Amino acid sequence: MYRPQIKVVDCTIRDGGLMNNSKFSMEAVRKVYKAVCDAGVDIVELGYRNSKKMFSVNEYGLWRFCDEESLRKATEGIDSKGTKLAVMQDSHKAFAEDLLPKKESVVDIVRVATYVKDIDKAIKLVNNANKLGYETTINIMSVSKALDRELDEALDQIEKETKIMACYIVDSYGALYSEDMDFYVDKFKKHLKNKEIGVHCHNQQQLGFANTIAGIIRGANYLDATLYGLGRAAGNCPLELLIGFLKNPKFDIRPLLDVISDTILPMEKDIRWGYSIPYMVGGILNRHPEAAMTLMNMDDKNPDKLNFRKFYDNLTENEV
Amino acid sequence: MYRPQIKVVDCTIRDGGLMNNSKFSMEAVRKVYKAVCDAGVDIVELGYRNSKKMFSVNEYGLWRFCDEESLRKATEGIDSKGTKLAVMQDSHKAFAEDLLPKKESVVDIVRVATYVKDIDKAIKLVNNANKLGYETTINIMSVSKALDRELDEALDQIEKETKIMACYIVDSYGALYSEDMDFYVDKFKKHLKNKEIGVHCHNQQQLGFANTIAGIIRGANYLDATLYGLGRAAGNCPLELLIGFLKNPKFDIRPLLDVISDTILPMEKDIRWGYSIPYMVGGILNRHPEAAMTLMNMDDKNPDKLNFRKFYDNLTENEV
Repeated sequence: MYRPQIKVVDCTIRDGGLMNNSKFSMEAVRKVYKAVCDAGVDIVELGYRNSKKMFSVNEYGLWRFCDEESLRKATEGIDSKGTKLAVMQDSHKAFAEDLLPKKESVVDIVRVATYVKDIDKAIKLVNNANKLGYETTINIMSVSKALDRELDEALDQIEKETKIMACYIVDSYGALYSEDMDFYVDKFKKHLKNKEIGVHCHNQQQLGFANTIAGIIRGANYLDATLYGLGRAAGNCPLELLIGFLKNPKFDIRPLLDVISDTILPMEKDIRWGYSIPYMVGGILNRHPEAAMTLMNMDDKNPDKLNFRKFYDNLTENEV
Repeated sequence: MYRPQIKVVDCTIRDGGLMNNSKFSMEAVRKVYKAVCDAGVDIVELGYRNSKKMFSVNEYGLWRFCDEESLRKATEGIDSKGTKLAVMQDSHKAFAEDLLPKKESVVDIVRVATYVKDIDKAIKLVNNANKLGYETTINIMSVSKALDRELDEALDQIEKETKIMACYIVDSYGALYSEDMDFYVDKFKKHLKNKEIGVHCHNQQQLGFANTIAGIIRGANYLDATLYGLGRAAGNCPLELLIGFLKNPKFDIRPLLDVISDTILPMEKDIRWGYSIPYMVGGILNRHPEAAMTLMNMDDKNPDKLNFRKFYDNLTENEV
């Protein structure tokens, strides 16, 4: 048995891009795109469509901007087999004019990531995208730090003022437990009568996959995942685990195994993602991974790098 | 809020010993023992009390046998702060005569690991241990492969014929999902009216910690975990995550952070545990990790080592 409404979204290149300033080679992006299409994944997100006014093209790679030309090069000659193409806009780092009309674009879906405080910017962006002909989602980041009354108000606005397909619970800090997933899915469903619920989970506490399952059981139908968990800090729900769990026979795990072997694992030379003690400490204390990433990036000779007790004590002393 | 009945068991040296033939240095074992005691963990298992007739003392380290002398060296001069000392006997690799009377031993608890088919051997061992004055548990391995009618019969025997404190659900293959944990905890509780339920979870699918939480929610009170997840194949539920989750103020996570930094992380040079694609494939297909461990231990130049598709296809073709 499976639920046909479920949509699996691969966001390897988009979320992984937070670990390398979106500097993936064209070859790597083409391989990921082909594998994900061959595996029958519903949606693939190839990066951000953020503004060049907000990010330097010298410091950031192609996949922070996802120009139409880059996306065409990444996808041409590859049979999508029905997999839709998504890009993400950050509500505070992208502008309406960054989008072309849908008929001039290879993009199908625009996902807008936002903090609760920027919800009006997000609503403006999704309404613009809908008007241009795209399907849309809103992804509410750092939900574990949102105040209930502000989150409730934002959800009511989304329900009334937008035509998005789905609204996401984004556990940016990897801080949620399964009981929290239940709480947030129930809350989102209560406020959003006409939208699907999505879940985007991080792995600071090795709960990315488990919390995605918890979301499925509670009714979420949009599920984000990345190849081998590649993503910010401790990474994401691993796509190969999610496909192994879902029973829809349209999925084929084997192209994912291939691309993990030939394209993702070699990236471990340059990018360090996955479970580690600093990320774990951030997760259990419900903190942005920035402090832990700074520790992880310290020179190996710096004795603070392995002084996890000091890191823990510092974080607990400075509650934010 | 927390449940005072919960007992946390550190089995780092015992389960980790499956990755290095139990060859830990005395210094490492003393550091682990001290940290776990300082952290307020209820029980620490320092290895197997298996028979020298079944394992060669030339091939296996001290912690496969846990002679009284070794255990005294590992613990002397360290304040246990109430942490109890456990050893494990394998029902098919240990004998009753391997135990001294409790009053001549530093051991408090004997845990007997068994497959369902060896349940009579396990019952003989725990009854012997109880008679000698120890507390006991039975840990049912590979539960995900057990046939229901055989498992039910074994549980009924345990209920009627033993005085163990707890009976464990051991997910040796890392194959269970949260709904399976619910199923097994309910089954164990139905048959075992007078024993606590334990959970020992593996991480092939990154669900070791999540399934331990699922067990807690369903009523399991004996919880196995290891430092940084060190254990067979993909490893175990990480102790530091479990302590972060449990709210009992008697626990202190900081000694665990210290020992992970100074003793466990350096072991990564010699032992490779944790999530990887071969283990994941074994987990989703409900297989013993042996085949995946063979692949992981292949020479790096062997092209089969990274041919995950072939490994997956081989395992799916040979259903066992």
